[in-house]
Amino acid sequence: MSELNLKQLVSEVISVIKFNEFGLVPAIAQQYDTKEVLMLAWMNTESIIETLKTGNVCYWSRSRKKLWCKGETSGHIQELIEFRIDCDGDTILTLVNQKGVACHTGRKTCFFSSVGKGGKRIIYDVEVDPESLYGK
Amino acid sequence: MSELNLKQLVSEVISVIKFNEFGLVPAIAQQYDTKEVLMLAWMNTESIIETLKTGNVCYWSRSRKKLWCKGETSGHIQELIEFRIDCDGDTILTLVNQKGVACHTGRKTCFFSSVGKGGKRIIYDVEVDPESLYGK
Repeated sequence: MSELNLKQLVSEVISVIKFNEFGLVPAIAQQYDTKEVLMLAWMNTESIIETLKTGNVCYWSRSRKKLWCKGETSGHIQELIEFRIDCDGDTILTLVNQKGVACHTGRKTCFFSSVGKGGKRIIYDVEVDPESLYGK
Repeated sequence: MSELNLKQLVSEVISVIKFNEFGLVPAIAQQYDTKEVLMLAWMNTESIIETLKTGNVCYWSRSRKKLWCKGETSGHIQELIEFRIDCDGDTILTLVNQKGVACHTGRKTCFFSSVGKGGKRIIYDVEVDPESLYGK
């Protein structure tokens, strides 16, 4: 993408997003082909720019208070396939190609706990040793 | 579901959820069969109890500051199929059967805007006259 196009794109995206009082917006990551919802994290302006610029999804880590490009230490990156914004501009949905696993527990998705009449069920197996992921 | 089972289920769910400073947790709704992500809204304890009790998804309306059972005026309810919680307990994913449309614009999903190199594209058509939905 040319520099000019990227600037226009970033400008368009930022102008329609309603950030919360902390300058953040929730961002859902969905695996583009299987359509599994992988995780929800938060983006600020910087992480949106980085995501659109690099084509790899980046968030703002609220615990570490820094830019967090998913997979930067583990290699389990989220390649951006499509960037969507909701009707109110207060939630982002990224369609991604998740390399490896999204969850710090070593599972494909963070939504591996299903609760119902029978109690809690774990519906995804651990695929990768969590120790190898260097935390979330 | 018996009263006892419901109480146990609610207790289990509430105990693992980490509510934010406003007593809320983001909740993603996903159509159970097509796997489309429909919307993101917020739940508090009351709306979680109501969701599990009635089998229809209820949120907390931050603008109206009241319980908001989706479709209560429009009839476009979200029948709960499955209730999932993420690894950190700070996001809910409901798999639902959306009656009619999820979005106040009359579209199936709130994520109908896709942004990319070519600018913004609207990728879902309006299916229902928004005037008939009595707002969001």
